[in-house]
Amino acid sequence: MVFMRFRPQLIFSSLPRAIPKPRTPPAATLAAAAARRRHHSTAVATSMAAPSEDALRRALAERQAAVDAQAEAVRTLKAGGGASKAQVDAAVEALKALKIEAGAAARRLQQAVGAGAGGGGAAREELRQAVVNALERKLFYIPSFKIYRGVAGLYDYGPPGCRVKANVLSLWRQHFVLGENMLEVDCPCVTPEIVLKASGHVEKFTDLMVKDEKTGTCYRADHLLKDFCKEKLEKNLTLPQEKADEFKRILAILDDLSPEELGAKIKEYGIVAPDTKNPLSDPYPFNLMFQTSIGPTGLSVGYMRPETAQGIFVNFKDLYYYNGQKLPFAAAQIGQAFRNEISPRQGLLRVREFTLAEIEHFVDPEDKSHPKFVDVADLEFLMFPRELQLSGESAKLMKLGDAVSKGTVNNETLGYFIGRVYLFLTLLGIDKGRLRFRQHLPNEMAHYAADCWDAEIECSYGWIECVGIADRSAYDLRAHSVSLLHPLHPEYEKSGVPLVAHEKFSKPREVEKLVIVPSKKDLGLAFKGNQKMVLEALEAMSEKEALEMKAALETKGETNFNVCTLGKDVVITKKMVSISMEKKLEHQRVFTPSVIEPSFGIGRIIYCLFEHSFYTRPSKSEEEQLNVFRFPPLVAPIKCTVFPLVKNQEFDDAAKVIAKSLTTAGISHIIDTTAISIGRRYARTDEIGVPFAVTVDSPTNVTIRERDSKEQIRVDISEVASVVKQLTEGQSTWADVSAKYPAHVGPQGDQE
Amino acid sequence: MVFMRFRPQLIFSSLPRAIPKPRTPPAATLAAAAARRRHHSTAVATSMAAPSEDALRRALAERQAAVDAQAEAVRTLKAGGGASKAQVDAAVEALKALKIEAGAAARRLQQAVGAGAGGGGAAREELRQAVVNALERKLFYIPSFKIYRGVAGLYDYGPPGCRVKANVLSLWRQHFVLGENMLEVDCPCVTPEIVLKASGHVEKFTDLMVKDEKTGTCYRADHLLKDFCKEKLEKNLTLPQEKADEFKRILAILDDLSPEELGAKIKEYGIVAPDTKNPLSDPYPFNLMFQTSIGPTGLSVGYMRPETAQGIFVNFKDLYYYNGQKLPFAAAQIGQAFRNEISPRQGLLRVREFTLAEIEHFVDPEDKSHPKFVDVADLEFLMFPRELQLSGESAKLMKLGDAVSKGTVNNETLGYFIGRVYLFLTLLGIDKGRLRFRQHLPNEMAHYAADCWDAEIECSYGWIECVGIADRSAYDLRAHSVSLLHPLHPEYEKSGVPLVAHEKFSKPREVEKLVIVPSKKDLGLAFKGNQKMVLEALEAMSEKEALEMKAALETKGETNFNVCTLGKDVVITKKMVSISMEKKLEHQRVFTPSVIEPSFGIGRIIYCLFEHSFYTRPSKSEEEQLNVFRFPPLVAPIKCTVFPLVKNQEFDDAAKVIAKSLTTAGISHIIDTTAISIGRRYARTDEIGVPFAVTVDSPTNVTIRERDSKEQIRVDISEVASVVKQLTEGQSTWADVSAKYPAHVGPQGDQE
Repeated sequence: MVFMRFRPQLIFSSLPRAIPKPRTPPAATLAAAAARRRHHSTAVATSMAAPSEDALRRALAERQAAVDAQAEAVRTLKAGGGASKAQVDAAVEALKALKIEAGAAARRLQQAVGAGAGGGGAAREELRQAVVNALERKLFYIPSFKIYRGVAGLYDYGPPGCRVKANVLSLWRQHFVLGENMLEVDCPCVTPEIVLKASGHVEKFTDLMVKDEKTGTCYRADHLLKDFCKEKLEKNLTLPQEKADEFKRILAILDDLSPEELGAKIKEYGIVAPDTKNPLSDPYPFNLMFQTSIGPTGLSVGYMRPETAQGIFVNFKDLYYYNGQKLPFAAAQIGQAFRNEISPRQGLLRVREFTLAEIEHFVDPEDKSHPKFVDVADLEFLMFPRELQLSGESAKLMKLGDAVSKGTVNNETLGYFIGRVYLFLTLLGIDKGRLRFRQHLPNEMAHYAADCWDAEIECSYGWIECVGIADRSAYDLRAHSVSLLHPLHPEYEKSGVPLVAHEKFSKPREVEKLVIVPSKKDLGLAFKGNQKMVLEALEAMSEKEALEMKAALETKGETNFNVCTLGKDVVITKKMVSISMEKKLEHQRVFTPSVIEPSFGIGRIIYCLFEHSFYTRPSKSEEEQLNVFRFPPLVAPIKCTVFPLVKNQEFDDAAKVIAKSLTTAGISHIIDTTAISIGRRYARTDEIGVPFAVTVDSPTNVTIRERDSKEQIRVDISEVASVVKQLTEGQSTWADVSAKYPAHVGPQGDQE
Repeated sequence: MVFMRFRPQLIFSSLPRAIPKPRTPPAATLAAAAARRRHHSTAVATSMAAPSEDALRRALAERQAAVDAQAEAVRTLKAGGGASKAQVDAAVEALKALKIEAGAAARRLQQAVGAGAGGGGAAREELRQAVVNALERKLFYIPSFKIYRGVAGLYDYGPPGCRVKANVLSLWRQHFVLGENMLEVDCPCVTPEIVLKASGHVEKFTDLMVKDEKTGTCYRADHLLKDFCKEKLEKNLTLPQEKADEFKRILAILDDLSPEELGAKIKEYGIVAPDTKNPLSDPYPFNLMFQTSIGPTGLSVGYMRPETAQGIFVNFKDLYYYNGQKLPFAAAQIGQAFRNEISPRQGLLRVREFTLAEIEHFVDPEDKSHPKFVDVADLEFLMFPRELQLSGESAKLMKLGDAVSKGTVNNETLGYFIGRVYLFLTLLGIDKGRLRFRQHLPNEMAHYAADCWDAEIECSYGWIECVGIADRSAYDLRAHSVSLLHPLHPEYEKSGVPLVAHEKFSKPREVEKLVIVPSKKDLGLAFKGNQKMVLEALEAMSEKEALEMKAALETKGETNFNVCTLGKDVVITKKMVSISMEKKLEHQRVFTPSVIEPSFGIGRIIYCLFEHSFYTRPSKSEEEQLNVFRFPPLVAPIKCTVFPLVKNQEFDDAAKVIAKSLTTAGISHIIDTTAISIGRRYARTDEIGVPFAVTVDSPTNVTIRERDSKEQIRVDISEVASVVKQLTEGQSTWADVSAKYPAHVGPQGDQE
């Protein structure tokens, strides 16, 4: 199961079979749909395992029991009348002390619950509010269509946000597409139904919804149950242990609940519509794709793509030929994706339209080694394999090379991409301490997937899945290929084009092949008009089925055989079909490549980056806190500002000369000639994370100030552009240039 | 009327009025819708004016008449029996000669008609087919969802196309956004209905459609009529002059026809469904927006945006404050736009989803000068002002500065953008001789627009509108502002937010202002329950209406007054309202900025660029033509290929060293070690327009080949990256480096 997206759990690993059982019983369907939802609540599922909360809850219960016992003792003492005042006073003192202890235990539990729920916690709320205020104030984001009171789940990037996004995408392209010679494609968002039927999205890209029975307002069923359980756990600290365990168990398995189970829990707990307290409908699936109609007739259904990956899969054949029919190769796509969320929450993290950057690396399933794995093998970072999650431990620093050699990470190629993702995210400025790679638990992962890891970034909402890195085996290509199902099967819906690769053998190899030869004459005599259906069913048998039939025919002379297109069993006799294994020479191997898919939620990465880059510092007057974003120069929306210190022709001319040289050097910059103090102007550029400020306080020789240290150096005008270019492109560090150029200690600066 | 997009022709220049007449009578609506369609057939409208075709048609008619007369003469001679054989033979010879002349005249006319119709012409067809084959062969484009037999009007950019697009967008951002310090925004494609109602798209973004009455197949009504007229003109060369004139007149006014007129013509000519010959329905408008539903209730209608501009307009207020409340400033947006075309034709030029890059430059309507106009004033290029179009002349080379100073171009800011667009397009590699700026004719332009020019590029489809540059005055901001209509007016649909700018006066100014003071008492007595409606209607009068009422009340003591919300006239007497002009001191001017909008159809520009860049040259064996794209290095999908001449460890190692240095220099490149001749490998890179090829034929010293001249120089390995970087970034030309480095004359090269 992969980043922010569902792929169905159909079974395609077996050969075609004539007697298909329903491949998607309701439970499997919903488990798959649930698995999709799971991405968004992993923080809960995993933090639940933390041992401290349980211990704290037990400690609180013990303290509370002690308080109750002591209170009872005090009452008894007082009521009995036989105790001295000193005895009573001592008992009351003891009670007070116990109450203080219980209070402290409650606070500790409260904190643990708040932090663990990945969303609570006053400090987190406060940080988030400060960041969001700073972002909206400087138009990093704008709620879309704000003058029309907006639309939930839609946001604009304003000018600095848009530049940050462009920089992040440009780095992504540099790091992945150009760095690895990937084949980038750019496909439309409007997608015909047939493509998304084959991928499984039409049937299963759903969330469970309940409706307010009176007003029709819609809610996500799992959200209501989750909120109920979390509130009970957070607000009622003296909940009996068994009740607490029940709520925690529900939170952990929330995404595995069937609609019936979810509905039953909602009824059992008496959960009602949060806004009106009206009763709720039973949960039912709601497809999250935006539906539309292609062309004027209204007959051709289309959807806005829920991911960019399908555009790559349907082009596999052309791309494989473009690549000279060589594996491995990777294709990539950056583009908009759309999900009509039932009720978007979590602000900028859960939106209805967003930019995805996806890579599909196609590889021979028999050789998943990667020649450049050595380049990342020594990287060491926080990894959270499923064993640690299941045993309730925390993520651990691990060496990527060890994780692959020990089999924690399934293969080198998957490991290589984990390493590249780590390098990319930290290059952007994501804090290493708040970044971990979490492996999917067995129940989170589609059965066909070999292994999945999410890059999770910790922010005020908890640990957020920002990149999914999955080895999806052959699933996606097969989904669009020539059908492995019988053409008469109700789920047959494929392109008819084989999406396979070839390996030419240097010399032909002898292989054993199953050969099924039905006797049309005998079948015709036995089944008359049904002959064709029986014939097709026989030819579509899997190897296993055919060998079982062969054995049965040899021992018993006949066998029962289910023909799904007839909806019944028929009797097959020995003369109706000959089944044998024959030796053949093969000149090539034909196989469906495995897909290793790193999928990046660009908006989520950028939001987390904003939180990790944000800090405040007091103004010189100490009256207010100044906001700063410590973006690395590569990410910063503007690299450099130019300030003439005072309004003056000479300084203005010098500023223009500098601006021109910056333009020539390709450095984005702005001149700020506002008649406010230089300190205020610095603060203004800090607020949008400009790393360098040039202050013109002389016509020949100016200062360059670094944002975070607030240090300044003096540089000749002719050198400014090259110094700033070196700094922003990473050829020099601030330490390098401050060693080379004299420090500026003067009147103008932050102190003003 | 602006690039690829309709904006309605509502009248907003007057003040609010209480007696609105229908602002959009059906004719106006359809003229507006027609105006939208007009973009796509300007080639026809303008080429119709070419005088040669008429002359050729007359010449052919004369020749044909002469043939007919001579044929009659021959028949008479033969029938009469009195003529000698020599006389008859001479007459027959004369007939033959006349027939040859008539044939030549017919061919000349055929050619003129073919070329003029901007789509015919065998040579054009052939060029287009060659370009499209070359593009599809190398995956510049792929029909989307090809394995599912595709969807009309949807195309993918494959790997080289995707890189070209990324390069074009990056240059656009550099040239416009960074070069002019524009505020870039990035808004969602999903747009709620209220926004597109205010902009007029919900009501009027339509094309006229007819349906096959039996099969339901849909056609664009104007396309069918256009095809009919063009076919008559092209196929029937001896059409009587008056018939030819009629068809040409229809082609010229096609976009101004009402649905009734269009329907009448279709009936008159007996036009039927092209595929089935079934009768057709009457034309009716079909809205071109892809409709969807936002959120789970199904009650909230949304559309996929048909342009990116509205996202900027609704953010005007925030952007104006972000810019320090200063004008002028420009906002920009790059993104997907969607139009559900009825029946997409013209391949890659008319698609259902495409990338737009739009700029909205907000300027004080009283000062449209531009400080940087001097930078572009000396540019000279093909301009096609409306006077030349109307008098049937061709586009002429004009100096931009002259065009503005003579008033041909309305104002400096508009002129500045025309110049910047010219620079941008030619920088990309658009051929100056096939680029012209065509002014909109009066009937093409919305009445509120001050002036509009299209950058048109000539390709095999004729002259194609690729960039629209329009001065749209205050229309768009007013469309979303506080309504100028009465809130009870049926068309009232606004954000309620004033989208205006302020100019603070250095000292207050005295102005005359209209003051309307109704007497509530007298109105109440006269109109009772209707008082409120009358009151609001009085207060909403325009200045003109109020002054007329004032005059009427002063002369006659009473007047009739239409109250639209009551649907009738009422009698207003002198004591019910006092109307006066009063002097007031004003401290600032509040006004709606004008919008100057350059709007770029990125896909169209890229397609034309492909045609302009394409050429073929014979292979050395002369057996086949080799395809070449002469992209400028900035646009080329890959800047450089590296070829080890033969398979050999030394050469491979050298190639790796060069590749590494190219990566460090940020030059996109590929190593091609395929075991085919170097000539074949050159041809392969020419096909995707790679400008430079490095051939490793020694471990220390290699050749660099330039694509178009096929010249080669010898360069030391350590210098390769810097030479290629200088060439691709434009610091050096090929002439510069070939003067500096020795030419390579050796065995390996194109000859192999």
